[in-house]
Amino acid sequence: MPDHGKSRLLLMLGAGLLAAMLAGCARSPSPEVAQQIASLQSRVDALQKKAQANEDYAAIANLQAIYGYYVDKSRWDDAAALFSDDATLEIAGRGQFRGRARVSEYLHQLGDLEYGRLFNHMQLQPVIHVAEDGRTAKGRWRSLMQVGHLGKEARWGEATYENEYVKTNDVWQISKLHSFITFYVEFDKGWNKGAVALPKHLDTLEPDQETTVAYGAFPEVFVPPYHYPNPVTGK
Amino acid sequence: MPDHGKSRLLLMLGAGLLAAMLAGCARSPSPEVAQQIASLQSRVDALQKKAQANEDYAAIANLQAIYGYYVDKSRWDDAAALFSDDATLEIAGRGQFRGRARVSEYLHQLGDLEYGRLFNHMQLQPVIHVAEDGRTAKGRWRSLMQVGHLGKEARWGEATYENEYVKTNDVWQISKLHSFITFYVEFDKGWNKGAVALPKHLDTLEPDQETTVAYGAFPEVFVPPYHYPNPVTGK
Amino acid sequence: MPDHGKSRLLLMLGAGLLAAMLAGCARSPSPEVAQQIASLQSRVDALQKKAQANEDYAAIANLQAIYGYYVDKSRWDDAAALFSDDATLEIAGRGQFRGRARVSEYLHQLGDLEYGRLFNHMQLQPVIHVAEDGRTAKGRWRSLMQVGHLGKEARWGEATYENEYVKTNDVWQISKLHSFITFYVEFDKGWNKGAVALPKHLDTLEPDQETTVAYGAFPEVFVPPYHYPNPVTGK
Repeated sequence: MPDHGKSRLLLMLGAGLLAAMLAGCARSPSPEVAQQIASLQSRVDALQKKAQANEDYAAIANLQAIYGYYVDKSRWDDAAALFSDDATLEIAGRGQFRGRARVSEYLHQLGDLEYGRLFNHMQLQPVIHVAEDGRTAKGRWRSLMQVGHLGKEARWGEATYENEYVKTNDVWQISKLHSFITFYVEFDKGWNKGAVALPKHLDTLEPDQETTVAYGAFPEVFVPPYHYPNPVTGK
Repeated sequence: MPDHGKSRLLLMLGAGLLAAMLAGCARSPSPEVAQQIASLQSRVDALQKKAQANEDYAAIANLQAIYGYYVDKSRWDDAAALFSDDATLEIAGRGQFRGRARVSEYLHQLGDLEYGRLFNHMQLQPVIHVAEDGRTAKGRWRSLMQVGHLGKEARWGEATYENEYVKTNDVWQISKLHSFITFYVEFDKGWNKGAVALPKHLDTLEPDQETTVAYGAFPEVFVPPYHYPNPVTGK
Repeated sequence: MPDHGKSRLLLMLGAGLLAAMLAGCARSPSPEVAQQIASLQSRVDALQKKAQANEDYAAIANLQAIYGYYVDKSRWDDAAALFSDDATLEIAGRGQFRGRARVSEYLHQLGDLEYGRLFNHMQLQPVIHVAEDGRTAKGRWRSLMQVGHLGKEARWGEATYENEYVKTNDVWQISKLHSFITFYVEFDKGWNKGAVALPKHLDTLEPDQETTVAYGAFPEVFVPPYHYPNPVTGK
């Protein structure tokens, strides 16, 4: 082969090497870098789950507290809006109300804000567990109640809730509200002097289903079922 | 060209290619790697905001609870220190006190820890929202109060707070404390028997401004304005 | 040198360059990429600590609330299981019980769930601080108590807790429960009419050590020591 032919061949070889090199660099990132990136992606995936669960804990704590503040002031439309479409509500053994429209009917029967009326339902002592997939959650709460009317009755009440929550389009709602009365007593007569019986049905509204869990308030004793196992023993 | 000249030329070309390659590798990270890194940076930015907001929720829950524990025991200097420089305080319709020095004056008028005195102000049922920029926050709380003196009076009280918080140099403080009394009654006379009127002014201290929100405690009814819209309807 | 020898030499040089290039690319990631990755790793390390601390706050809030719900219903084995091996318990000045077995003995002495008995111990107003290393935590809480028996006594009580927690194998437990009674009164006699004295020892069980902190309940006054400094002043 003539000399100039070899030169051209070698130049073409060189150019080919150059192209192959640049392409090769592009197609094969350092294995070290690839592994560091994969590790970071995995850690960030796990962090996103954890940070979301933490945010959900606070969102649900807020939601149940918001419910309570609406109930205190008879804001029934606002309270009902916090329930999911298929939510159920069961309070004080008065049967189960199913679906938000029925929950709303129940709430509206509880009375209106008016001079001399007190209807405090404090929402306290949360135990909140968000499900692994972040779409549902459960919460145990208790309520200390101060209810009554000027010139009529005054009562203290206490109850345990076992509630459920569902997240739809990034918004948490109550999917189940189940309240078990612990005691309901006259303001000036303690539990030692007996209890005030709560009517088994509202006067004005039948439930969709009779109570799902039969129990009695004080002086009866009842342990509202826990949504969680013992966090240490797992039982 | 002589053979040895061509050899030198080709060796120089090769050395040049080598240098160009190494420099090229350094100056042009894989587009795939660049995009993965940009994606990770974006996810970590979002995570930092979320984790900070979660931390802020707990810090504010702690702060308001800490305030309450100081109030219980008349730790007025400690309680006043929790307020920002320009904070305002308005309690039980007694007018607004503006700035931490005035907040401190108000608190010191509430009485000292002494044998036979009870001044419990429980801090309960938080609804906490941290602003998008993480610099301010708002919280709705309620207080159940047990107050009185051995041999004199004993009262139950209940109130709603709508408070604001500000973060300065990484430390949260209360920038606004506004408490609306729901009821204040004799220990042994329930709300059905009427309420104990709270004096409109402290005997010993005039406010900086008359009450910003006129309202009445039980038997009057009042809905302390919410700092938040309905979390489901947005209204 | 003959032409074909030079060609072979140059081809070998080229192959050697190619190999060196590829190896070089592999061994020397872009300094820019290396720095971006190091920065991401550092940010993710910090985020993991923060997200874990946020999760721990909620886990401890849940744990103490879970304890309270077990106490309400005399679930003594479940309540005792929440304590670490070396945990201590000290309630109402009745001396200190050391180790979970002794905590369990103390709890079992508190009585069983039975018709007409009420033993509510609400767990409220948490101030929770998780240690930097995420292995321990401290919490100040308060309890509002409704206790009594149908036909016998009815009391209101209130107490402050200063508790400690330890995380073992990813599970939080109570390592110290120390409760200071604020008041304990007859249901129908407020704190103005005096207090009900709580016996200094359980009838049936001696402590491992006399009370570590002597104090008196109302009408005495006492400030249970804080596990935290003022969050603003640092004192």
